[in-house]
Amino acid sequence: MDHFSIPNLFLVLALMLVAAKLLGELAERFGQPAVLGELIAGVMLGGSVLGIIPVDGTGADIIHALAELGVVLLLFEIGLETDLREMFRVGTASLSVAAVGVVLPFALGFAYWAYIPHAASSGSDLTMAAIFVGATLTATSVGITARVLSDLGQMNSEEAKIIIGAAIIDDVLGLVILTVVSGMAAGASVNALGVLRVLGVAVGFLVVAVLVGRFAAPRLFDLVVRMRVRYVLLVFAFAFALALSATAAAVGSALIIGAFAAGLILSGINQFDTIEHEIRPVASIFAPIFFVSVGASVNLRLLDPSSEGALGLLGIAGILTVLAIIGKLAAGWAAPWVQFRRLVVGVGMVPRGEVGLIFADIGRRAGILNEAVFGAILLTVMATTFVAPPGLKLLFNASPGRTKKT
Amino acid sequence: MDHFSIPNLFLVLALMLVAAKLLGELAERFGQPAVLGELIAGVMLGGSVLGIIPVDGTGADIIHALAELGVVLLLFEIGLETDLREMFRVGTASLSVAAVGVVLPFALGFAYWAYIPHAASSGSDLTMAAIFVGATLTATSVGITARVLSDLGQMNSEEAKIIIGAAIIDDVLGLVILTVVSGMAAGASVNALGVLRVLGVAVGFLVVAVLVGRFAAPRLFDLVVRMRVRYVLLVFAFAFALALSATAAAVGSALIIGAFAAGLILSGINQFDTIEHEIRPVASIFAPIFFVSVGASVNLRLLDPSSEGALGLLGIAGILTVLAIIGKLAAGWAAPWVQFRRLVVGVGMVPRGEVGLIFADIGRRAGILNEAVFGAILLTVMATTFVAPPGLKLLFNASPGRTKKT
Repeated sequence: MDHFSIPNLFLVLALMLVAAKLLGELAERFGQPAVLGELIAGVMLGGSVLGIIPVDGTGADIIHALAELGVVLLLFEIGLETDLREMFRVGTASLSVAAVGVVLPFALGFAYWAYIPHAASSGSDLTMAAIFVGATLTATSVGITARVLSDLGQMNSEEAKIIIGAAIIDDVLGLVILTVVSGMAAGASVNALGVLRVLGVAVGFLVVAVLVGRFAAPRLFDLVVRMRVRYVLLVFAFAFALALSATAAAVGSALIIGAFAAGLILSGINQFDTIEHEIRPVASIFAPIFFVSVGASVNLRLLDPSSEGALGLLGIAGILTVLAIIGKLAAGWAAPWVQFRRLVVGVGMVPRGEVGLIFADIGRRAGILNEAVFGAILLTVMATTFVAPPGLKLLFNASPGRTKKT
Repeated sequence: MDHFSIPNLFLVLALMLVAAKLLGELAERFGQPAVLGELIAGVMLGGSVLGIIPVDGTGADIIHALAELGVVLLLFEIGLETDLREMFRVGTASLSVAAVGVVLPFALGFAYWAYIPHAASSGSDLTMAAIFVGATLTATSVGITARVLSDLGQMNSEEAKIIIGAAIIDDVLGLVILTVVSGMAAGASVNALGVLRVLGVAVGFLVVAVLVGRFAAPRLFDLVVRMRVRYVLLVFAFAFALALSATAAAVGSALIIGAFAAGLILSGINQFDTIEHEIRPVASIFAPIFFVSVGASVNLRLLDPSSEGALGLLGIAGILTVLAIIGKLAAGWAAPWVQFRRLVVGVGMVPRGEVGLIFADIGRRAGILNEAVFGAILLTVMATTFVAPPGLKLLFNASPGRTKKT
């Protein structure tokens, strides 16, 4: 029996939220994104340091459900902020940057894990693990990138437009990869046909949901808005995100693809502003619970210098970080027919975040990535997130105009 | 093993929210408060009709935790909306109305249950059950009353001020009674000393928390507001409510007294407006989960005319409703030294709501009120909530000015 009680749970949640905000603030004061601080808060409250966050029993089940609510809200919000027409308008440059920035890191990560001898063994299936490792290196964090660009006052620069466009396409590609990867984690065999089937379901769900939703949602929400009960729009939007997430999972796609699709659909309705305005406070409470939970699943003892394999683990994290950075930097040189500061775009694409962590978490839960590899990937995600903000700051300061071509 | 999964849970939550809003809307269209519709939505989704809301296993645990989050958010919001100075300023009229409106219904309910023969037996301890029955009849729903008055455009009338003042004092008295009652449910023996001890803890916690909080919170939140991370104020306020709720429960008071105290404390700080503005969307999502859960715990089969005891149950509900109404109507004639339309004030005090349901729910969970009595009390709460809005509408229409003295 676990000694679960509601007051205990509430105290743990309060600690998670306060720690997330305090360390998020600290991260920002050091010029880093807040999400980094939230991850570190999780590591500290987790089993390997303070042991405050429960790891099994009813309490852990409830925190897991709240974290899933957090990630659904987060992807719903990203979907809401994604302008479909903008996505079609950003054109070839963003598409090329996105494609190279997804394919190259995946290939590098996969090749390193599948073909080059390394310190950590990775569970039963090497190919499967290599696919997961590659996948975690693909998706740029549109949230972090957009935040850094806006902090630097560069949101309207040519490079920012390309980066944001590419990061958004990246997110969609990442979500498709996620579904493939989730399907594999759930036991689908790794062959071309299987991958195509899973890919078909993911893309098919996204296309059907968005097409049907874009037609039906404006009509539905024009009815909803005529209701008088308080916050009816917000509650229906939230229920819509939950229902579409559950549907996505039921048809064999992923929970967060449904949440993203729900956001994408509602970004086109008349009541968009109200929904976005009101969902943010809700997301701001639950998203940190997700990041803190992810941080809490890191076993810091693996990095203890006196423990066997700690150095190997740091080595793997180092190599993955280098591969992750090279892959995205190279993406800056995609689309040679357009002129922009390529290094700025490359560095802007480097931060991994939410989606990479979700990949790693799925791999860990499915037993495909062991604790050590999960820890190394988390370090990699944190390092890429750590590198970009100061890098971009430097580059923008060094070449403030469009004079310098890199 | 229960067949729990996150997608299933999300689908159930989506259904709960949509049903709550649709039936809430329907209730409002019939001139009734939305909370009535939310309760009915719960009855329909609950075990005795559609059986959609899980009653045990992990899913039920998670929904229970979310409902508790909802009730904490609700009481936190009520606390935020309570102006301490206003409470001290409303003076003797409100205080008298509140006192009579708490003591009389309690006495009537207790006497009926303890001394007059009735159809339903009520578990092991008759005195304990009588205290619970009396307690459920005490607290006016400040939320419903305020909403009805503002719907009628009467928020600035003399009677409205007295009603709101009394309802707020009522809420505090109700919360104190709740703690006594919770303490009893947890096994404290029913004697004068025990009641005084529990009362002392409840009042003591409230006074100490509010005194210390009123001193410390402005300083704390003036620091918090200097942080840059997004929604830091909201997240700290929410964590504060969670932590104070947990503390209240830990020292032997009740979860919701802590939440109310947290709201009361933060209603005095400089950043009050932002917090109230941002917590509302969050509360609007989780409070309905509480009311739907409460509705779901009603066993409608008890009211099946063909079932044994159904008529008796309806009889009890009818008698309790009459006692509940008489007790509050009489409160309108308290404070004879002030002049106001006494019937308007009396009817305005009639609606029971949140707090009454919380009492009944605690009694049911502790096994002090059996399913049948719980059902009767729920019907009573619903009936009082049902009676007031049209009654007030009629009275205000009949005597629009201050000319008529009733």
